Amino acid sequence: MTQDAIGARPPTRVVIVGAGFGGLACARKLRKADGFDVTVIDRNPYQVFSPLLYQVATGGLPEDDIAYPVRAAIPGVRFRRGEVVAISTAAHTLRLDDGTVLPWDQLVLAMGSTGTTFGIPGVAENALQMKTVQEARAIRHRLLQTYEDVELGHAPREALQVVVVGGGPTGVELSGAIAELQRAMHREFPSLADYATVTLVEAGPRLLPTFGEKSSARALRDLEKLGVDVRVSSSVERMYPSTVRLAGNIVLSAGTIIWAAGVAAPPQWAGLGTADRANRLEVSDTLRLADDVWVIGDLAHRAEPGERPLPMVGSVALQMGKYVARSLVEQRAGGSPKPFAYRDKGQMATIGRRRAVVELSGGLRLAGLPAWMAWLGLHLFYLTGGRQRVSVVADWVWNYLVWGVGPRRTVID
Amino acid sequence: MTQDAIGARPPTRVVIVGAGFGGLACARKLRKADGFDVTVIDRNPYQVFSPLLYQVATGGLPEDDIAYPVRAAIPGVRFRRGEVVAISTAAHTLRLDDGTVLPWDQLVLAMGSTGTTFGIPGVAENALQMKTVQEARAIRHRLLQTYEDVELGHAPREALQVVVVGGGPTGVELSGAIAELQRAMHREFPSLADYATVTLVEAGPRLLPTFGEKSSARALRDLEKLGVDVRVSSSVERMYPSTVRLAGNIVLSAGTIIWAAGVAAPPQWAGLGTADRANRLEVSDTLRLADDVWVIGDLAHRAEPGERPLPMVGSVALQMGKYVARSLVEQRAGGSPKPFAYRDKGQMATIGRRRAVVELSGGLRLAGLPAWMAWLGLHLFYLTGGRQRVSVVADWVWNYLVWGVGPRRTVID
Repeated sequence: MTQDAIGARPPTRVVIVGAGFGGLACARKLRKADGFDVTVIDRNPYQVFSPLLYQVATGGLPEDDIAYPVRAAIPGVRFRRGEVVAISTAAHTLRLDDGTVLPWDQLVLAMGSTGTTFGIPGVAENALQMKTVQEARAIRHRLLQTYEDVELGHAPREALQVVVVGGGPTGVELSGAIAELQRAMHREFPSLADYATVTLVEAGPRLLPTFGEKSSARALRDLEKLGVDVRVSSSVERMYPSTVRLAGNIVLSAGTIIWAAGVAAPPQWAGLGTADRANRLEVSDTLRLADDVWVIGDLAHRAEPGERPLPMVGSVALQMGKYVARSLVEQRAGGSPKPFAYRDKGQMATIGRRRAVVELSGGLRLAGLPAWMAWLGLHLFYLTGGRQRVSVVADWVWNYLVWGVGPRRTVID
Repeated sequence: MTQDAIGARPPTRVVIVGAGFGGLACARKLRKADGFDVTVIDRNPYQVFSPLLYQVATGGLPEDDIAYPVRAAIPGVRFRRGEVVAISTAAHTLRLDDGTVLPWDQLVLAMGSTGTTFGIPGVAENALQMKTVQEARAIRHRLLQTYEDVELGHAPREALQVVVVGGGPTGVELSGAIAELQRAMHREFPSLADYATVTLVEAGPRLLPTFGEKSSARALRDLEKLGVDVRVSSSVERMYPSTVRLAGNIVLSAGTIIWAAGVAAPPQWAGLGTADRANRLEVSDTLRLADDVWVIGDLAHRAEPGERPLPMVGSVALQMGKYVARSLVEQRAGGSPKPFAYRDKGQMATIGRRRAVVELSGGLRLAGLPAWMAWLGLHLFYLTGGRQRVSVVADWVWNYLVWGVGPRRTVID
């Protein structure tokens, strides 16, 4: 086939559903390739940098700093705001909530995940989630508003007790940040200082179960130094509006309950293939359900035989997105893509303002302030927008230097 | 009277209603004096730096940056969140919306002002105001959401036409910032570039009527360079959902109408004394209605005989607040306060990102970039919080250097 003949082929219509880490990484890479007509679909016109949602929830960052406009991230790529309600792999089409039907030649599914309650009674009704900007905003509002309410006598002092469920990175980061927020609030509400508490509940025997035991122990110690009451080996049996009942008949009183214990893919796509318990679709080693349907990020269940599937984290999604873009280019050029290989770079979690635990894949392990510096640098590196980076640095420098004496974010209804 | 006898006197109970520029300035100064028991009341737990509301409305700053927690501004001073619904000067009490009755020895009224429509038909129903953070947020949402709506075909292209009414500093700053926002949005919505417009309507013969004619002419020229369609000598006769009718049967089509044409004090306090057309209470040369009732800021009508009253701007309120604090101290020490004298330092308005007009009271007049630098420095100086200052500097430096290529704030519902 001559160059001319290739040039004359119609472009491959790629539709990417979801503008998270995976979907955007794929779109950004495809944008530079020839021969593709790319459309990205998302219900929101912004990408959320979800590793920093807990900072929004605790007043450390304004929400603008972690929400990046999708169109600005992928100039020249078509962006369609909407919700996908149906997919036909036979007809090669999908339908949006406003009735529009879009055709595609290659489909990339990158819808991500949402919180899941594992069916524990009372969780859906009584706990706040933290998967979206709106949910983080609601947590922030609740945390700050409660001080006002208690001071005015509209709520009992017990309302200042916070319970966070889930000892993974999200729960660890969130509970540490809440402890520091509470300390900062004491200056403004000195009479309430003794009543604000935060308890972190984890069902397993240690925090950060995907980390090494040393890191888990360090996270526990650092959180306790911040005043967090950590309860491991404590599974939630039921939630009520202001109490959490743990196994063994332990009852925690709680004005705010935050659920950070589990994520799952949206259930409505399970029928497209074989789904696991978390609604994730099992994919081939090239991340496909079919020759023209790719699944990436939290929605993908990708595992070597006998091994655990890849974790539902941003770095997996990012690598998958880039891989699919590369594979589409290879495929269009007549080649066939090599299997996807995840390159694990490690994991990290921050604890309060100046500490973190970091485990790099080479075996390097950091804790405390050096780990925090590494955490800071890497997050800044991955934050999409230059503007956001400037603001975030300013806020972090400020938090780091003078949180102890400076103001906090305020309740704006 | 001996020191001991003075020391034994009960403290003077001062209640300050309103935590704006005037109320907070008064509280901050009184806080350092002996012999006062001070309570500040406001419906919101934050102070709004209102000169920068237009930046929130146009996506230049997150709302956190211009809202400062009141309690953090006045540590040690009692803050009471609530709305004052009744004042009895005879009984020396006031009542809050939750029924609480607070006694006072000295009352400082600093409720500020709200937008007023001058009774022009259709304004209240069809125009957005910009006096509160919530209103600025609503403007921002409308400006950004309209692009989404038009692109999806949910709104006609005419929806991208913006009309700002009022050629004072607020209208000038807002229309310039909207023109720049529209330019930034063109990169994300290239097909809509030709349809977004902004028109600034002023009833009087020139913009910035309180400035000199040179500054007015400069503001006009700078706004027109930014693409703003400026209509002076154009009074609004009526508004409809998507049109503004001007005198002379001129009709402007408008997707978003913003009213920045007039402010007035809240009407419910007019009965406490003699009120002018803008509901402002006429006060003595010591800013009093009675020996123990002081009125400051936008709520105060203070004029020398035959002269115009002092303008409703932040610097007047600030100086009045400090003056009342000093006077209360003098009064308690047995002295009697000297009349209030306003020290006019000048006025300024910014036009777009890099231009401003500044008039200092000594007669110095600046325009263009030097004026903008002066504007920037002064606003940063007066922003209350250190943290806010860091963030705002970061955002402004960013806007200044790379607005042309950087992302903008996004629609977060």
